[in-house]
Amino acid sequence: MRAIMIIGDGMADRPLRELDYKTPLEAAKPEHMDKLASNGISGLLDPIAPGIAPGSDAANLSILGYDPWKIKGRGPFEAAGAGIELEARDVAFRCNLATVNENFIMIDERAGRIREEAGELAKALQNVQLRENSDIKVVFKQTLGFKGALVLRGEGISSNVSATMPNAGDRVCSVKPLDASSEAERTANALNEFVKISHELLKDHPVNRRRIAKEKPPANVVIPWSGAEPLIIQPFYEKYKLKAACIAGASLIKGIAKLSGMSVVDVSGATGDIDTDTMAKANAALRAIESNDLVIVHVEGPDEASHDGNIRGKISIIKKIDSMVGAIIDHVDLAETVVVLLADHVTSLRFRKHTGDPVPIAIASTEVVQDDVRQYNERATCRGGLGRIQGKHVMPLILNLLSIPEKIGG
Amino acid sequence: MRAIMIIGDGMADRPLRELDYKTPLEAAKPEHMDKLASNGISGLLDPIAPGIAPGSDAANLSILGYDPWKIKGRGPFEAAGAGIELEARDVAFRCNLATVNENFIMIDERAGRIREEAGELAKALQNVQLRENSDIKVVFKQTLGFKGALVLRGEGISSNVSATMPNAGDRVCSVKPLDASSEAERTANALNEFVKISHELLKDHPVNRRRIAKEKPPANVVIPWSGAEPLIIQPFYEKYKLKAACIAGASLIKGIAKLSGMSVVDVSGATGDIDTDTMAKANAALRAIESNDLVIVHVEGPDEASHDGNIRGKISIIKKIDSMVGAIIDHVDLAETVVVLLADHVTSLRFRKHTGDPVPIAIASTEVVQDDVRQYNERATCRGGLGRIQGKHVMPLILNLLSIPEKIGG
Repeated sequence: MRAIMIIGDGMADRPLRELDYKTPLEAAKPEHMDKLASNGISGLLDPIAPGIAPGSDAANLSILGYDPWKIKGRGPFEAAGAGIELEARDVAFRCNLATVNENFIMIDERAGRIREEAGELAKALQNVQLRENSDIKVVFKQTLGFKGALVLRGEGISSNVSATMPNAGDRVCSVKPLDASSEAERTANALNEFVKISHELLKDHPVNRRRIAKEKPPANVVIPWSGAEPLIIQPFYEKYKLKAACIAGASLIKGIAKLSGMSVVDVSGATGDIDTDTMAKANAALRAIESNDLVIVHVEGPDEASHDGNIRGKISIIKKIDSMVGAIIDHVDLAETVVVLLADHVTSLRFRKHTGDPVPIAIASTEVVQDDVRQYNERATCRGGLGRIQGKHVMPLILNLLSIPEKIGG
Repeated sequence: MRAIMIIGDGMADRPLRELDYKTPLEAAKPEHMDKLASNGISGLLDPIAPGIAPGSDAANLSILGYDPWKIKGRGPFEAAGAGIELEARDVAFRCNLATVNENFIMIDERAGRIREEAGELAKALQNVQLRENSDIKVVFKQTLGFKGALVLRGEGISSNVSATMPNAGDRVCSVKPLDASSEAERTANALNEFVKISHELLKDHPVNRRRIAKEKPPANVVIPWSGAEPLIIQPFYEKYKLKAACIAGASLIKGIAKLSGMSVVDVSGATGDIDTDTMAKANAALRAIESNDLVIVHVEGPDEASHDGNIRGKISIIKKIDSMVGAIIDHVDLAETVVVLLADHVTSLRFRKHTGDPVPIAIASTEVVQDDVRQYNERATCRGGLGRIQGKHVMPLILNLLSIPEKIGG
């Protein structure tokens, strides 16, 4: 027995006035997801607990059975996912390529969602060295479009600094230490210096000159946020005795996979956005399950569309994920392969933010007691046989289906 | 966004043979409650956990997100609700005006549910001073009918005494220390002395002579029970950043509101019994929500009827609460105001006691995924979209609807 877990990032939502109080999953009428639910058992899943809104790091770690309350920041996962080898005392940050004006006021947190051109800009940032804080080494890596990761390395640095993503209209480059230590002060200074240097290197870059000429926002600064030292997590194999592989576009998810010791399957065409090649992911999953006990297929697109308030985009990527689900369930034997479908959290199109609502989950397998749920969405699954469960229950439920687990007690 | 939480005290129940195995909520056919459920999401709520029977203090504190297992006694809440300013080392008790015979045997724990006359009797108890334990100060306050609160104040007192409510047939005035300390012994002595003095002051009181003449049980003793030192609880505003007001007749609930720093709205006609003016409460709630984020409307009546085994009374007060629910939901916009309806616990008409059964809960809002539950009762809500939740989940669920909460993780 083996399992494929399909995670639509931020795919679940609240009812929307614009959709006649249907959710995007209801509006998309995803036939293959509905088929999966029809062949299994469904329910509602609180990624952490009822009402608690999780970041993507907290949600996915919770679903994999790790304690989400221990997370200090998503930086280390982003950095690991970007391919940076972390050392124990590093402090790692998620980064955005963003647009600021000449007064360092935030104009666009994602630089107009810059895509391919970001790679060219990133070359200018490859060997940045700090001048004022020259004993701190910086490693920057751009990943997908506007996203990247930054690692600070050196003696006497600290994650206890106020490095958050500024909102449009706020001043950037104003990281402050959050305690009186010299480590926090040095780190805040180093971050502010890095942001300034990134602006110097990017503001007149030919790519940005071209973008300005086309009236696109220039990606003229790098903003580090959500910094933390690497989180020590128990290796996934040691925890569950399952050989696992992860297929994801988003660096955060790749990083969680790497830091938990899963193999990471790179799929060309996985962009982490709504244009991602979901059929390539389906094929990769079907290949990977031949040599793994568990394959996780994570699709970032619905979350991106939700953060943009893009209703049609969200429905469109849900339909693409639906095709991917179809390609997977049509090629596996549910007597041998358990297929789990869920969202990691709700990202509300209306509020453009993660919320604390539960998400639908469906588990297709000949081993489960099939209920009478025939649709995969927030409304239909609430009457399913799984009831209302939590993120921490997902792996025990899968383990219970894959092989009969060791008993508690005698 | 803002929320009104309507709590029917002990409103939920078990199926009753006398009602053809319907519950009182089913028998009452409350049209407005059913409308509320139809416009929202429903479920079953364990006030603490499945099978655990809560006192009203534990149930309401749990629903507000406080740890019910930390409660040592309801006395401090009763005393605060009665308007007594508590000091940290006080020991406070709930009290009943009760009826004993000449041998101090309990005849009626509530003195025939004495009403208005209780205020006149209480005047006789206003300045009680202990003689044998004269260094302990006593403060007694009568609240609604047979209910009151007693505070003991002084050096070297202890709540570790056996002050419980005697059942009919038991001997009163037999409080004992529960440890070998002089504090517990002094406190037990003081309580027994107070009970004796209350009997001296009340037994020949003109009010009681009139009651005896009318063959009503005289309220000829005060019984203190459920004593404790004041519980330190985190202020509600500090915990949730919500400005909250509470509308309640019962001193216990008023006391919980006061000790958690909510504002307490006094409503004339709120009696804490089945004759309470529920429409006055509805109007007060609609006024209070103009200047608060959360208004709690608590109606004590169903609990009183249940403890009396009064089936018709319980159905009647449920219908009155139903009118109150109607007056509230007809005057709010569910896109702006979340309306939550629940019972704090089951009080069984048959057993005249709180039980550990779950209660129905419904949340009406345009932000929730409406389920197909069309009735508010113990049977219909069990298939609702909330599933089975616990008291501690209520506030996170409300916060999640009022404003998007801070994410856990990055």
